[in-house]
Amino acid sequence: MKTPTSLDDLIDALRCLPGVGPRSAQRMAYHLLQRDHAGAERLASSLAYALGHIRHCEKCNNFTEDMICELCRSQRRDAALLCVVEMPADLLMMEQAHCYQGMYFVLMGRLSPLDGIGPREIHLDRLVKRAQDGVIREVVLATNFTVEGEATAHYISELLSNKGLKITRIARGLPVGGELEHVDSGTLAQAVFERREIS
Amino acid sequence: MKTPTSLDDLIDALRCLPGVGPRSAQRMAYHLLQRDHAGAERLASSLAYALGHIRHCEKCNNFTEDMICELCRSQRRDAALLCVVEMPADLLMMEQAHCYQGMYFVLMGRLSPLDGIGPREIHLDRLVKRAQDGVIREVVLATNFTVEGEATAHYISELLSNKGLKITRIARGLPVGGELEHVDSGTLAQAVFERREIS
Ligand SMILES: [Zn+2]
Ligand SMILES: [Zn+2]
Repeated sequence: MKTPTSLDDLIDALRCLPGVGPRSAQRMAYHLLQRDHAGAERLASSLAYALGHIRHCEKCNNFTEDMICELCRSQRRDAALLCVVEMPADLLMMEQAHCYQGMYFVLMGRLSPLDGIGPREIHLDRLVKRAQDGVIREVVLATNFTVEGEATAHYISELLSNKGLKITRIARGLPVGGELEHVDSGTLAQAVFERREIS
Repeated sequence: MKTPTSLDDLIDALRCLPGVGPRSAQRMAYHLLQRDHAGAERLASSLAYALGHIRHCEKCNNFTEDMICELCRSQRRDAALLCVVEMPADLLMMEQAHCYQGMYFVLMGRLSPLDGIGPREIHLDRLVKRAQDGVIREVVLATNFTVEGEATAHYISELLSNKGLKITRIARGLPVGGELEHVDSGTLAQAVFERREIS
């Protein structure tokens, strides 16, 4: 007696989700098949759709369905400012803090040698190119104040030194070890306001 | 500036998975789109395939791709014995313990009034009909020894009383509050061996 093959496949496939081990993959599969066919159908189709349609913006590297995302196409942003964040959620936090009107570059990660994430994986070559478009005058480093976020900011500031750019770091108004996602808008706005030049 | 709609859809759809809140749904979506396109494609297709092909066996209610599952079709099982378990994983544990050669009925749950799971949701009408096929002589109740599992066993034993069937409960060799999934094969085999008649 064995579990049907397509059920095994599904359980196995669910394990590609971060933080999902064999036990919870099994629980998820049973739940979907037993209690939530509608949700499962929606998950399968939205996943297939997202895979076919979501790409990285050629300018800011954020997720988008277009070549260039809406924010990068906007005429109302200050094209001389480029803010570097780790993740899309960090960009959303910046926008919600209403403290910044420039452009962005989303690393989709941070330097983390132990996890095999180096300069290439977070596309620092593209960032360097983007920062040297002739319009950008200041690069605001808004990576997290974690060990890895700080190391990433430091690495980027070295990469961009001596290129005629002002490189700033948002102020350490965030608690040490803090992450942008978990901070209130006021604190984040203050940190942007107090950003200091670091090279 | 807003997140692309199809990304929102995906994050929302991931929340149908049990134990997945808004924060981990977002983390999962980013992970799939950023780091595991192959895994995401496999998940979408195995989910769609499972939805289209996996059904409940008409005899034992377990997941299967056929009308009647392989175990129920087998000629090597003792058709006079019917073991009632809560979940497919419990059936697998029973099989791995090599202590039982009869048939099964999988409730796909247990009575849980607080969660809105009553006799109808776990198909007790079908179990009663199955147990009265004229061949079954003994129904072995192998629900968990949790409060809900015990209540379910009790309820079923009442339902099946005075129908000329022997109703047994696997022995309380499992620790109180214990679940079949988490017990070793030897203990489970012992519990089956020591099953006692309860009505
Ligand atoms: Zn963009
Ligand atoms: Zn069956």
